[in-house]
Amino acid sequence: MTSLTFDIPPTDKGALEEGSSFTPKFDASGLLTAVVTDADSGELLMVAHMNAEALALTLETGIAHYWSRSRKSIWKKGETSGNLQSVAELRTDCDQDALWLKVRVAGDGATCHTARRSCFYRSVRLSDGKVVLKVER
Amino acid sequence: MTSLTFDIPPTDKGALEEGSSFTPKFDASGLLTAVVTDADSGELLMVAHMNAEALALTLETGIAHYWSRSRKSIWKKGETSGNLQSVAELRTDCDQDALWLKVRVAGDGATCHTARRSCFYRSVRLSDGKVVLKVER
Repeated sequence: MTSLTFDIPPTDKGALEEGSSFTPKFDASGLLTAVVTDADSGELLMVAHMNAEALALTLETGIAHYWSRSRKSIWKKGETSGNLQSVAELRTDCDQDALWLKVRVAGDGATCHTARRSCFYRSVRLSDGKVVLKVER
Repeated sequence: MTSLTFDIPPTDKGALEEGSSFTPKFDASGLLTAVVTDADSGELLMVAHMNAEALALTLETGIAHYWSRSRKSIWKKGETSGNLQSVAELRTDCDQDALWLKVRVAGDGATCHTARRSCFYRSVRLSDGKVVLKVER
């Protein structure tokens, strides 16, 4: 468990957007969106979600923790596979409802459960009025 | 309005993850998460949401359209500011509930309403047991 807690977002938009207080704006389900990129290549690896506890654990340990919406539990990414994510930098956006994690992936470097480096391995294209997927890597 | 529609996700996980059918998995609010990066620099610019209509308009026009959760309406990003986003590539992830748009931003290149290039201009750090934000650019 963690002892780190987060303050409620201010009603003043200027304070939220330009201040130095971190006041994450969790959604109705208590979650933030987390965008995860490779700290070295910049590649988009995955999109996940964090609740307050996952965020606190990530800040305290430097290892990415998420909230698994399907399992409804804290998810220390890579705990089973060995592909732990060390957080090189954490950022938030203007309204503090999204996070950007720049990570280094341990083990064989896979992020996706399909064993690929990134979950975003397929492009989406409109071709002759139909939408098709193409595996890019 | 658009005539493009999307099929229901298959129950077969293999088809969802490895097939060539685009079957976006909209959440309970009818939305997908959209991660937007600069097609040239790779920088993370913003995180937004798309409903089926915004996604169809984006595919048909090549210009990014989102769903504004605050205004509850279609949001053609940059329509007012001139910072329209041309989509160079669109990707989806393994379970097809998130999108990655690689875009080129028109006008003065700002994405954030604070006039910055990216909404992610602040880092989040744990310092002496306190979480602090720092403006990085």
